[in-house]
Amino acid sequence: MTLKGFSVPLTPQGKSALATLPPWHYSSDCMAIEYWADPQAVAALLPPGLTPDPKSAGHAFFWFLDWQFTGSHDELTDPARYQYREAFVLVEAVFNGTPVNYCPYIFVDNDAAIARGWAQGFPKKLGSIYQTRTFSAPSLAAAPLAKGSRFGASVAAHGERLATARIQLEEKVADPAKVFNRPTTMRRYFPQLAAAGQNKPPVDELTMSLTDNLAIVDVWGGAAELRIPEVQGEDMHLIAPLRVGRGYRLGMAYSVTDLRILKSNTER
Amino acid sequence: MTLKGFSVPLTPQGKSALATLPPWHYSSDCMAIEYWADPQAVAALLPPGLTPDPKSAGHAFFWFLDWQFTGSHDELTDPARYQYREAFVLVEAVFNGTPVNYCPYIFVDNDAAIARGWAQGFPKKLGSIYQTRTFSAPSLAAAPLAKGSRFGASVAAHGERLATARIQLEEKVADPAKVFNRPTTMRRYFPQLAAAGQNKPPVDELTMSLTDNLAIVDVWGGAAELRIPEVQGEDMHLIAPLRVGRGYRLGMAYSVTDLRILKSNTER
Amino acid sequence: MTLKGFSVPLTPQGKSALATLPPWHYSSDCMAIEYWADPQAVAALLPPGLTPDPKSAGHAFFWFLDWQFTGSHDELTDPARYQYREAFVLVEAVFNGTPVNYCPYIFVDNDAAIARGWAQGFPKKLGSIYQTRTFSAPSLAAAPLAKGSRFGASVAAHGERLATARIQLEEKVADPAKVFNRPTTMRRYFPQLAAAGQNKPPVDELTMSLTDNLAIVDVWGGAAELRIPEVQGEDMHLIAPLRVGRGYRLGMAYSVTDLRILKSNTER
Amino acid sequence: MTLKGFSVPLTPQGKSALATLPPWHYSSDCMAIEYWADPQAVAALLPPGLTPDPKSAGHAFFWFLDWQFTGSHDELTDPARYQYREAFVLVEAVFNGTPVNYCPYIFVDNDAAIARGWAQGFPKKLGSIYQTRTFSAPSLAAAPLAKGSRFGASVAAHGERLATARIQLEEKVADPAKVFNRPTTMRRYFPQLAAAGQNKPPVDELTMSLTDNLAIVDVWGGAAELRIPEVQGEDMHLIAPLRVGRGYRLGMAYSVTDLRILKSNTER
Repeated sequence: MTLKGFSVPLTPQGKSALATLPPWHYSSDCMAIEYWADPQAVAALLPPGLTPDPKSAGHAFFWFLDWQFTGSHDELTDPARYQYREAFVLVEAVFNGTPVNYCPYIFVDNDAAIARGWAQGFPKKLGSIYQTRTFSAPSLAAAPLAKGSRFGASVAAHGERLATARIQLEEKVADPAKVFNRPTTMRRYFPQLAAAGQNKPPVDELTMSLTDNLAIVDVWGGAAELRIPEVQGEDMHLIAPLRVGRGYRLGMAYSVTDLRILKSNTER
Repeated sequence: MTLKGFSVPLTPQGKSALATLPPWHYSSDCMAIEYWADPQAVAALLPPGLTPDPKSAGHAFFWFLDWQFTGSHDELTDPARYQYREAFVLVEAVFNGTPVNYCPYIFVDNDAAIARGWAQGFPKKLGSIYQTRTFSAPSLAAAPLAKGSRFGASVAAHGERLATARIQLEEKVADPAKVFNRPTTMRRYFPQLAAAGQNKPPVDELTMSLTDNLAIVDVWGGAAELRIPEVQGEDMHLIAPLRVGRGYRLGMAYSVTDLRILKSNTER
Repeated sequence: MTLKGFSVPLTPQGKSALATLPPWHYSSDCMAIEYWADPQAVAALLPPGLTPDPKSAGHAFFWFLDWQFTGSHDELTDPARYQYREAFVLVEAVFNGTPVNYCPYIFVDNDAAIARGWAQGFPKKLGSIYQTRTFSAPSLAAAPLAKGSRFGASVAAHGERLATARIQLEEKVADPAKVFNRPTTMRRYFPQLAAAGQNKPPVDELTMSLTDNLAIVDVWGGAAELRIPEVQGEDMHLIAPLRVGRGYRLGMAYSVTDLRILKSNTER
Repeated sequence: MTLKGFSVPLTPQGKSALATLPPWHYSSDCMAIEYWADPQAVAALLPPGLTPDPKSAGHAFFWFLDWQFTGSHDELTDPARYQYREAFVLVEAVFNGTPVNYCPYIFVDNDAAIARGWAQGFPKKLGSIYQTRTFSAPSLAAAPLAKGSRFGASVAAHGERLATARIQLEEKVADPAKVFNRPTTMRRYFPQLAAAGQNKPPVDELTMSLTDNLAIVDVWGGAAELRIPEVQGEDMHLIAPLRVGRGYRLGMAYSVTDLRILKSNTER
């Protein structure tokens, strides 16, 4: 009998697997805060195959996302298992002459999201993530998509606050492609524990996220704040903001069925 | 120096208090599942002052709510502290000839919500609550407010699943007041631990929730499922569904500044 | 039919109540860090009936406790519900000429502990609490009760680290009564939400914790560190350490069946 | 500059990595419940390279473990990050004529434990795990290691209870090697998302756990109960107990520096 599942655990029925085979469909509400980090600190994070983007001057985005996921089995009706929240940084780099984003830090609150993320190259860790939501019933608590509305967001892990952001909406963004226009690259990496191979990971690849049916909707821009404090046991503060730019609030959806492997750094 | 706070802990600055003085503003997305429980089991849960509603035949609603809260200090921009999720049952009863709802069981995932709830009479316990959300970016994962969309919800405590629901939207509800039309009553209760008074609670009141600026929007109805299984250490299954009616998905907002005390059962 | 339960929710079976009638039996492993805070900040936290202890000079203890609870129904065999972790501060004061401790801040990770605590006067909020444990199987990870062993502890809420401590054991403490010798007092407080009474809480009492069969065992003392940083939405940093004294690691058990009400500040 | 870390994320400082290079030192308190599952269901879970053990007749153990971890940097003094709880099943099989255990299901509450586990081949998912602890301060809540003491344990995920156990101690076990005497094997597996390779995982190995300085202490045996109910979205109930044997409570410690790869099933 074949054991089923895209990820572990593989079982005869395949129900216990953290991730099933694609397609993976996602929709989200997002906050993204533009900022500038120390360019040398950004350069120091890049994996083999990526080079610093000399035009970027440390330009980066910090994202917070409330996700809903579904596969082929109406997973969205089991929200205890298939909703999750995410926070990540995208820094800018160059691959073979092409401007790209690279994801050095990412946090989620769900193990299926960790399993799918590691398979892509997102270096996901567990965190506790929140962002202000927009509700349709009018109230001082509703945070409508309107000029003047304020939104906050935060990510914490192990009881340490890793980042806190706030934005205040000013106007709709007519052309989001001018703001979000680089493909995202990742380092897909799986280690070797056998003593003779601890410096030879069996999987070490530079990958690019492929998204089908990408939709970016309802994009608003405004003023922003962002803090990434130094905490015990983390080093994300090395790319803390030296300067903060605009904040954005948007909806985003896409599907994943594939992954591009840009370059293998795996030694055989 | 006066110590500040509506609830404990009271401090000079009043920042640590779980709850500050009203007004309390709320907006939410909700799922509500109509069902019928054993009328005798419902009657057995009613506190002094309420009598069974002979016309109800066990009619009840199970609610799931994703809430955003704000007070007077832009609390909604601190979502790690001021968003919360809730699940509760409303059973039907009569107070002084008036048809009312009564809340015997309620779960939230936030301590400020417990503090405000106990002050009103909601017997809140901690739980882990989820409901399918509607996202604006189109995707198989988006669950739009449209005919055929499916939503799920669940509540668990201490790793035991207490209720699971699913609904499938069929049509907009033109007049929600025909569905949700009873005021909600609660038992406001605070116990005495001093040995001589353990059977004389200092606060035992029948109360009624007062909501300013109530808004109920975007109400859809459809087919529904609901399960309330028996689990160790809980007795909510005694009002499990014998029959399930319609399911609803809606937005709701209101503010709280006051509470009506219908009847004091406190012995002096 | 009578509804049962010491706390809400009251039900015919009494199984759902957060707290049942005493006796309540507890056993714990504890870390306690002696420190000195600003005496004026301590004085500012005291409720009516307590006065500052002029001999204390801001002397305080920060405690971390891993608790196991049982009532009369073998609750300790349901650890998902009846284990919990706690962190609190005890500051020194005087009641009617008697030196006492007073608890202004306390955090737990369990709702039954909140319900029992509020009934006593402990102003409990939810937190995420950890302390290094001692394991019997020998390992670099075992942290035995022995000279040189190092222990850490922390408390966080809403993803903000509220306190972090470390101790290194030096020697057994022969007479713990010289270290821990003041009874603990609390402010038992339950608010009124009805608009006309929002400044007249129906319960506002100065209480004293009564503990039967108190056992304090295996007390070790050593060097200590303690940090209480300022975070958004809390004010506990106002009594942060100006100086840190000794650290202690101990076992403690007791039972609760009663509460002493020292003074009622309730207005009728 | 070299990026550091055994697992992702790799950074210049190496502080953010979920796992650092071995040695990894562990100490734990454990409950293990012997039981018999359907032998065909056990056989159906085995990966290539393992065959059913005809002498086992479905013999299995369900384990609950409270772990403390340390690496080379005093990690045990940061318990918010380095304590974790675990629950897993070991079923029996044969590798090349040698009787072994195999781990088909395992749950932990910590992401570093997931990262180290996946590197070994343990198919870890997130869960919420509890077991009754032994405290040294005497109390009805202390659960001492003594005849008659009762212990409970449970594991849940996504608000569904996956297993519940109870044991009652009867006597010390003189020779634990008669009870726990098979090495543990795992399936080390990392998937491929690139469309052309979704059926060709780059890592698919049968591995064996290597433990240095193994210590098993304070082993008690007694009567046991175990339930593994069927829940939505999991299939572990397929190896639910048909019969339950003895329950054990013990301490266990070991260090990990290496892994044995028994057989590679990876296609090149």
